[in-house]
Amino acid sequence: MTPFRSFHPPHRTLMGPGPSDIHPRVLQAMARPTIGHLDPAFIGMMDELKAMLRLAFRTQNALTFPVSGPGTAGMETCIANLIEPGDTAIICRNGVFGGRLEAMTQRVGGNPICVDAAWGDPVDPASVEAALKANPGVKAVVVVHAETSTGARSDVEAIAQIAHAHGALIIVDAVTSLGGTELEVDAWQLDAVYSGSQKCLSAPPGLSPVTFSERAIQAVDDRKTPVVSWFLDIGLIKNYWSDGGKRSYHHTAPVNALYGLHESLVLLHEEGLEASHARHLKNHIALRDGLEAMGISYVVAPEWRLPQLNAVRFPKGVDDAATRSRLLNEFDLEIGGGLGALAGKVWRIGLMGHTSRAKNVHRCLAALRTVLS
Amino acid sequence: MTPFRSFHPPHRTLMGPGPSDIHPRVLQAMARPTIGHLDPAFIGMMDELKAMLRLAFRTQNALTFPVSGPGTAGMETCIANLIEPGDTAIICRNGVFGGRLEAMTQRVGGNPICVDAAWGDPVDPASVEAALKANPGVKAVVVVHAETSTGARSDVEAIAQIAHAHGALIIVDAVTSLGGTELEVDAWQLDAVYSGSQKCLSAPPGLSPVTFSERAIQAVDDRKTPVVSWFLDIGLIKNYWSDGGKRSYHHTAPVNALYGLHESLVLLHEEGLEASHARHLKNHIALRDGLEAMGISYVVAPEWRLPQLNAVRFPKGVDDAATRSRLLNEFDLEIGGGLGALAGKVWRIGLMGHTSRAKNVHRCLAALRTVLS
Repeated sequence: MTPFRSFHPPHRTLMGPGPSDIHPRVLQAMARPTIGHLDPAFIGMMDELKAMLRLAFRTQNALTFPVSGPGTAGMETCIANLIEPGDTAIICRNGVFGGRLEAMTQRVGGNPICVDAAWGDPVDPASVEAALKANPGVKAVVVVHAETSTGARSDVEAIAQIAHAHGALIIVDAVTSLGGTELEVDAWQLDAVYSGSQKCLSAPPGLSPVTFSERAIQAVDDRKTPVVSWFLDIGLIKNYWSDGGKRSYHHTAPVNALYGLHESLVLLHEEGLEASHARHLKNHIALRDGLEAMGISYVVAPEWRLPQLNAVRFPKGVDDAATRSRLLNEFDLEIGGGLGALAGKVWRIGLMGHTSRAKNVHRCLAALRTVLS
Repeated sequence: MTPFRSFHPPHRTLMGPGPSDIHPRVLQAMARPTIGHLDPAFIGMMDELKAMLRLAFRTQNALTFPVSGPGTAGMETCIANLIEPGDTAIICRNGVFGGRLEAMTQRVGGNPICVDAAWGDPVDPASVEAALKANPGVKAVVVVHAETSTGARSDVEAIAQIAHAHGALIIVDAVTSLGGTELEVDAWQLDAVYSGSQKCLSAPPGLSPVTFSERAIQAVDDRKTPVVSWFLDIGLIKNYWSDGGKRSYHHTAPVNALYGLHESLVLLHEEGLEASHARHLKNHIALRDGLEAMGISYVVAPEWRLPQLNAVRFPKGVDDAATRSRLLNEFDLEIGGGLGALAGKVWRIGLMGHTSRAKNVHRCLAALRTVLS
């Protein structure tokens, strides 16, 4: 007989850097019967999904769809399509994900020029401008809107203006911001933006919503070399995800994962995008007040703090791993450890999407009071 | 108010080239609560999943895991890691997926040499041997075990022997074969093999199980250039999927999709791999007898037919698209059309995984009798 058994996961409260808690309606949607990826009923669902993503991204970009992979695949979709061998890109680096963007740019043959800021600080638009002045002909500026490794927001609107003033495209990582904080793809004139399903949208991980402006599509059309990735080539994928008309097979879409993302977007639009932002802010303030009352301080200055990702310095003398294990084992509560330069120094407490509820703020504060007492 | 509503898919019987019908236990597993991708409970599930995949692939390869993307991502994982700029690869081309492998090889900077066979025929091992003799120093031979576009099996064991005799690696597409027909990764000495979740494993689409031999890992370690894809670089991914020890974050794993694949493998091992092969064969024979009684003939010669994918020439004068639409709309039955050179000429009737049941054979034959009468 097989020694293998069905897996029954514990019921956690997910207050780390993602995945976040999933609404029961989204989990139910994941379990609906699979249909074919070219079924007319499925194509109708895809059209709705794109329309809802456009509203969430605040864009009218035709090419707005979920990449069939996690946020890292969305990141690589933007880099691999827009940077070709010999292209120079300015990579704003103020956390783990800036470093990842630098590595991806190198791997596709691009020439990354890094503009650094301290971990926990926002990217300085003046540094980006200086780098653009010093390096004529930059193809794109790449910036992380909400650094999941530090909890810092950057002023993407200002950086986009500077990039365009120097004839460069602007590529934005909105993995942790979409749905949780203001993000205006069209008003800020962002050219390529990628996000993730498992943060403030509160769908299971595995999908990466992206959106490309007309200017970005033109840049892809103007390439001199093919995109190194066949799987992520938007010139091919758009024939499957385009509005109306005939859908050409490219790869088999992750049908049930898309059911889940669709339902999470229905929930977002039932609540309203601005109401969702307000909820994220309100619960952040409640958590912040509770943490500060316990003597726990934030990594990021108030102006640049992400309400959905609270990076805090835990009290001196606390055993990081042992404390997080206790939270997990005794309270079924997941919070995140530090990443990269902040490993072993901070905790990252997520209040994203369906996790961002008053009861979770109370649960987290009560658990922390117990384990730190 | 939002005009968007929850999506409720129709209940189809999926007898196309994939996805196949999903067992209710797999759908239930997809809806279990999401937990963190570094949660110890999740890591325990990953270890079981790898053990079950090794049994399904018939391998002891340590590096056996599901890529976080559809079969096309698994294909690109094998090509991008094993072929570097300047490498020559022999691509066996007897259907759509051989052509895709050629394109991917070119995009990563490799030099593909194509060995062609007619669509519907198996790859001829003698042609592969001739190509290896004519082109010394070939890095890898790439072959599709079960061509989903034509329904033809190829003799991967023989081709692997020839490749190794010439010092080349063997890369195998087992998207449609894994779980449905004999596939012996270790006994046949296959070096890199990729599959898909949505065919004979009957999990939802979106994951691509892969396995790499020690020889393949050595070839990746010996590369002179970095892998062009950061997302698919197995040198990085293996730090997350490796057995035991510390798991390093690479990307956020698609948690709920992995629950589904895990459950589909529990089902496979409850049945037994050989019993699953026998079931696929038995239902194929019943379908074949019924189709032939209706005057419908197969594309592939009996010896090379895939039991799980029946490519058949529909009767003259039949309107392809209209007939398949009728099957979908009146019978909730999906069968596949032709792809590439066989578009408009054949139907592809899948009997994969949970679809491969006697009642579906009867349902399909009865529906075809009605729409063709």
